[in-house]
Amino acid sequence: MEGSPSPFRTPVIPLDGPDKVTGAARYTFDLSLPGMLHAKVLRSPHPHARISSIDARPAESLVGVAAVVTGADAVRLPDPYYGVAIRDQPVIAIDKVRYVGDMVAAVAAIDEETAYRALNLIEVQYEPLPAVMTVEEALAEGAPLLFEAPAGGAAVPVGDGVTSLKEPRPNVLSEFGYRNGDVEAVLAGSDHVFEDRFTFSRINHFHLEPYVNVARASREQIELWSCNQDPFVLRNDLARIFGRPANIVRIHASYVGGGFGSKSFCKMEPLVVLLAVKAGRPVRLCLSLDEGLLTLTKHAGVLVLNTGVMADGRLTARQSEIQLDAGAYSDASAMTVVKAGYRITGPYRWMAVATCAYAVRTNSVPAGSFRGFGGTQASFASESQIDMIARRLGIDPYEFRRKNLLSVGEPFQPGDSGIDSDLLAGLDTVVDRLGYRRRAPSVAGTKRRGMGFAIGIKDGGGTNYAQALVKVLPSGRAIVNAATVEIGQGATTALCRIAAETLGLPLDRVRYGAIDTDHTPLNNGTHVSCATTVTGLAIERAAADALRQILEFAADRLGCSTGDLTLDHWTVRQGNYVHSLKPMIDDYFGAGYEFIGRGGTGFAYDPAAPLGARNLFWIPSWVGAEVEVDCETGRVVVKHLVVGADSGTSVNAQACRGQVEGAALQAFGQSLFEELRYHGTEPLNATPLAYRVPLASDLPERYESFVVEHGGPGPFGAKGIGESGMLGVAAAIANAIEDAVGVRLRQIPFTPERVLTAIEGAR
Amino acid sequence: MEGSPSPFRTPVIPLDGPDKVTGAARYTFDLSLPGMLHAKVLRSPHPHARISSIDARPAESLVGVAAVVTGADAVRLPDPYYGVAIRDQPVIAIDKVRYVGDMVAAVAAIDEETAYRALNLIEVQYEPLPAVMTVEEALAEGAPLLFEAPAGGAAVPVGDGVTSLKEPRPNVLSEFGYRNGDVEAVLAGSDHVFEDRFTFSRINHFHLEPYVNVARASREQIELWSCNQDPFVLRNDLARIFGRPANIVRIHASYVGGGFGSKSFCKMEPLVVLLAVKAGRPVRLCLSLDEGLLTLTKHAGVLVLNTGVMADGRLTARQSEIQLDAGAYSDASAMTVVKAGYRITGPYRWMAVATCAYAVRTNSVPAGSFRGFGGTQASFASESQIDMIARRLGIDPYEFRRKNLLSVGEPFQPGDSGIDSDLLAGLDTVVDRLGYRRRAPSVAGTKRRGMGFAIGIKDGGGTNYAQALVKVLPSGRAIVNAATVEIGQGATTALCRIAAETLGLPLDRVRYGAIDTDHTPLNNGTHVSCATTVTGLAIERAAADALRQILEFAADRLGCSTGDLTLDHWTVRQGNYVHSLKPMIDDYFGAGYEFIGRGGTGFAYDPAAPLGARNLFWIPSWVGAEVEVDCETGRVVVKHLVVGADSGTSVNAQACRGQVEGAALQAFGQSLFEELRYHGTEPLNATPLAYRVPLASDLPERYESFVVEHGGPGPFGAKGIGESGMLGVAAAIANAIEDAVGVRLRQIPFTPERVLTAIEGAR
Repeated sequence: MEGSPSPFRTPVIPLDGPDKVTGAARYTFDLSLPGMLHAKVLRSPHPHARISSIDARPAESLVGVAAVVTGADAVRLPDPYYGVAIRDQPVIAIDKVRYVGDMVAAVAAIDEETAYRALNLIEVQYEPLPAVMTVEEALAEGAPLLFEAPAGGAAVPVGDGVTSLKEPRPNVLSEFGYRNGDVEAVLAGSDHVFEDRFTFSRINHFHLEPYVNVARASREQIELWSCNQDPFVLRNDLARIFGRPANIVRIHASYVGGGFGSKSFCKMEPLVVLLAVKAGRPVRLCLSLDEGLLTLTKHAGVLVLNTGVMADGRLTARQSEIQLDAGAYSDASAMTVVKAGYRITGPYRWMAVATCAYAVRTNSVPAGSFRGFGGTQASFASESQIDMIARRLGIDPYEFRRKNLLSVGEPFQPGDSGIDSDLLAGLDTVVDRLGYRRRAPSVAGTKRRGMGFAIGIKDGGGTNYAQALVKVLPSGRAIVNAATVEIGQGATTALCRIAAETLGLPLDRVRYGAIDTDHTPLNNGTHVSCATTVTGLAIERAAADALRQILEFAADRLGCSTGDLTLDHWTVRQGNYVHSLKPMIDDYFGAGYEFIGRGGTGFAYDPAAPLGARNLFWIPSWVGAEVEVDCETGRVVVKHLVVGADSGTSVNAQACRGQVEGAALQAFGQSLFEELRYHGTEPLNATPLAYRVPLASDLPERYESFVVEHGGPGPFGAKGIGESGMLGVAAAIANAIEDAVGVRLRQIPFTPERVLTAIEGAR
Repeated sequence: MEGSPSPFRTPVIPLDGPDKVTGAARYTFDLSLPGMLHAKVLRSPHPHARISSIDARPAESLVGVAAVVTGADAVRLPDPYYGVAIRDQPVIAIDKVRYVGDMVAAVAAIDEETAYRALNLIEVQYEPLPAVMTVEEALAEGAPLLFEAPAGGAAVPVGDGVTSLKEPRPNVLSEFGYRNGDVEAVLAGSDHVFEDRFTFSRINHFHLEPYVNVARASREQIELWSCNQDPFVLRNDLARIFGRPANIVRIHASYVGGGFGSKSFCKMEPLVVLLAVKAGRPVRLCLSLDEGLLTLTKHAGVLVLNTGVMADGRLTARQSEIQLDAGAYSDASAMTVVKAGYRITGPYRWMAVATCAYAVRTNSVPAGSFRGFGGTQASFASESQIDMIARRLGIDPYEFRRKNLLSVGEPFQPGDSGIDSDLLAGLDTVVDRLGYRRRAPSVAGTKRRGMGFAIGIKDGGGTNYAQALVKVLPSGRAIVNAATVEIGQGATTALCRIAAETLGLPLDRVRYGAIDTDHTPLNNGTHVSCATTVTGLAIERAAADALRQILEFAADRLGCSTGDLTLDHWTVRQGNYVHSLKPMIDDYFGAGYEFIGRGGTGFAYDPAAPLGARNLFWIPSWVGAEVEVDCETGRVVVKHLVVGADSGTSVNAQACRGQVEGAALQAFGQSLFEELRYHGTEPLNATPLAYRVPLASDLPERYESFVVEHGGPGPFGAKGIGESGMLGVAAAIANAIEDAVGVRLRQIPFTPERVLTAIEGAR
């Protein structure tokens, strides 16, 4: 099952490991520039209000304050709005605020304390407006509108959308419809149709490193050191917002201390640049963790599934309605809606499907990218309902899935690319490791045990593009230059390993260069589990280009053809002869030389292709959970968690396991603990102390992972794995809870309160 | 005379101009890193001494001191010595000090004041040794030796040397011999043989920005921000000294505030890195201007020329002996000796020549690269003697030169490349502009006027190598990446102009990327007037490579061949049709794309070729001076200075004139004012206040420059011009002084004291 042997099986020390373990690793947080100011942001106390006036003069007069920025400064920008698909979020609030925490004014001062003091001196007059705090309120007839007119920014085509539109309905920013076959007829002809409703709560990314940016701006250059994971996206956004050419905007990226989607695309970065422009000095803005909780969330949502099935257990059709709570601004919502809507059918065979998914504006924290990107919401609903249906029909959930599961090569939907992994084999591994077949029936008593499992699937690799350069020094040392950001996922090690393997060099001879958009080849972002596949392929090609040059050079010097030569550990082999390259290069070039290999991925973007044919690969995962539910307290303890995924080929087997395990534990936390809650219009627990994440003592008592290798389109057959572990965890735990105590949890997280309420409701 | 029209005639605002004028330009001096320490250096009070002991503990115990480094730390390095040709200079003194100012210990502390205080607590016990302060003393029988054994470091072949050897004689670090024809026989057959002796004084580079370096070192990386003009040379030196692979050493270069040779190659940089390694924190070392005066000088020297001539004015042979004072360590002396020795014959036709040149160690400040690199010393002696011989023979100095001058295409020496400029035409321009033919004879009185001129020549471009990348964005904006350092010479503007012209873009659409050895393609240094020619050619080729890719892309999209297309202002022209590139690129690539052009100069290094055939081009210059000498005070006032040079093709005509004028004024200062003097073993004026540079009021009353364009091997026919203005100035002024008052100044600078002594001696 564990696939064919790979050149990458030997465990390696991550290249960023020693720096991180010793504390030598430098994050944007650590940066300090001469003359640098510190910024703080004044945030709206109102969920929805018109700004009647702002008097910034008292703050500007405070000694130590260099600049105060408000909407009056933003409106003078060539284009003051951003948003990855729909540009509706202003650099700083213009005229209106739309959620508690919306950015109203910002101060740059000699230190953070002075900046904080200045915030108190800014006098803002608000005219409060009625707010909509839930999807239901927002969609109600006559509901207050977040955007009265067409959204403030220019609407642009949604990358992956099929029917995404600009404000198709009041407070709906984007809508995705998909239909295949006559769903109504198929449902009417089904033996059973089950309608179930699932609720996904608002969850924060809770990355360890806060949002931090340092900007410096002169007439000649805008320079930004950012924790953002998409330096080129950011560069192009800043160029547009400030009306400057992209080649004078320079983004530096260093290690990023976790993001999980929160650090993708443009957020507070233009505000930092605006402060630097106005102050004429470098400005650092580091958001507090509290502010981080008010910056971005994962989409809360309501998912209603109508699923048809025949008496023999064959699935027939699924009709779904997905409402995602986008919060106050679009961010990546238009794209997330598409992904959630498309993935809602799960890895099963259908006669017909129909989806209506939409993103609804509410006066709450904006929602955006989160590891899994709509897939975790869809997977929770889909895999929960699959289990419920099996139980209702009295079919074993394993058998029910086996009967309906897509086979290798079967398209996800008609016209899509085929499934590139053995879904059943993965499920079998989970079932086997969990001991599902040997399980004892739930015993009587207050603590009951149960088992559940789930299969996740999402499309991966997106439509990403990457270019790369590989510099090879005469000593046989190399530097890889590409703009995939090391966000803790181990990309640098995997990418350097790809270059090393291609060049026949040991890994410790290859380094990953720092990212600087002035120099580093273009890459359109570190997301969609694409680093190893997309950037990796560009690097493999760049390394191969360097190798070709090296062999051509050697063949020229040796008077033979390149076909006679191989390169291994920086030694050229020609039949039985070996030649050292360094003296050959030094002798010929005298003054020095570096081979520069160049490569890019050639994945073309075809907006006309079916959604599931535009992906580079499929990301499956398999999860099994055994839980113990305390019927007196409602507390759920995960006794055993098994998670598996398909890496195509593991370029770094340890890191692949780490990714799978990390993602599954993140999903575990979201299944049982995490939730950003509102009390009316007020965020209730938007502080790291009140926002409950799992503690070490909460972790599964037994935790296993496995990685299979079914090949993929990336270098050496690799494909992305970073998001996979997120997908099935919530459903597997919900399924295990029902197995244990016979009640169904339809809303995450499964807090003791919710579990107890469900148990008591069932009595 | 001013050559063919060039696409570069339009004056442009230098790309670095606005940043520099507004103060936004950032130099290494401005850099501050978090946790950065400040270093200071303890320097030897003895010209020559053995270090018996150093007790650094009291300094180490001082609160705020993080590290003290001495020779005991240096000896533990894998290779503690540096030096561009002969590696004899320790990172910090080991066992011995060899000049007043030699680095004995260094402290890194929380601030400069603490570091200074700690220096006073370092207890060094010296055993003074006898010192040699002049070339004569150093060469005397039984003179004390600076290096008792073969020099401490490993000797490596001298790049351009023919017979350079390791310590060929006691206190002689390198020797250069050249012989062509039977000089002795030709001299014996000459009507006259004149022997003259010239003395060149010790001169400082007096760059505006001090020597400044900031180092940060971890297990994973050595990082250095440096004012050095040779980032890759430095990278390789640091790798060797610290025994680390070159790809983990990362050098950042920013604007450099002048160097004139002083910032080439390795100097105090390894010491800064060593401090950072020992302290475990970033360290900044900024030398004071006083310390700069004790770090490097131009070679003082004695040049003895025996020149034969026939009665009709034909030069026959020249035999020369050149002693250059190398100071205590080799630095670039071995290479300078070769250049001075080879250039001593000047731009004339000889039947035979013989040179013996050598670099002599003395217990004084080390001598190294200086704009002109041995050529100014040679030119002063040669062009002075040519004038003297003409006057002795009663031949007009113009006519005497005209008769003997090399023609276009004539080799400098047999086997050399031909002279690529019209030397006589340049001389005619000088003579004409000076009004030499209309000059009134020196009138009686205490202030006498006279005119003189000189022709300089040196080989240029060296054996330099450069690679370059040019990134072109879809918007038709470009970033040029190459490692030529902007040291005030205007390189970035010229290099961007080459890329812009090649790509058909306006200059303001092209930017020069910051230099970072991790990313920037290799370049072996910013010297030998090579930036426009060597790096420029690499950039031209990289831009042409990008252009080819762009046209291939457009041809593919338009279904035509690249030959049908031209690119102009980012618009593709196809016959009568024009196509916008940006939408074409955006449509096709969707997620973004950047064209990356790659290019390198292919100048091969051939150590077997004659010296004057290894150069890429010849650097001629023409200087005319009219002086007024006050016979009562000895004060020389330059009334009129004319200087001309050949740019091949001016890529930036303004900047070329600026280079010529700047160099000639620098040489003017050295001719009349500058001299680093010793009193016995003590530097007498090693402070910026006592070291006399010209004031604005000292400048020539009338100052003219001209640039001719005879073509060259660089892009668009350019060649280097940065050093040219230095060459003939001292001789032209000396010749004018003799013309005015009939006395010959054989030692620069021509201070009132020296002039008056000469006048009084002649009475």
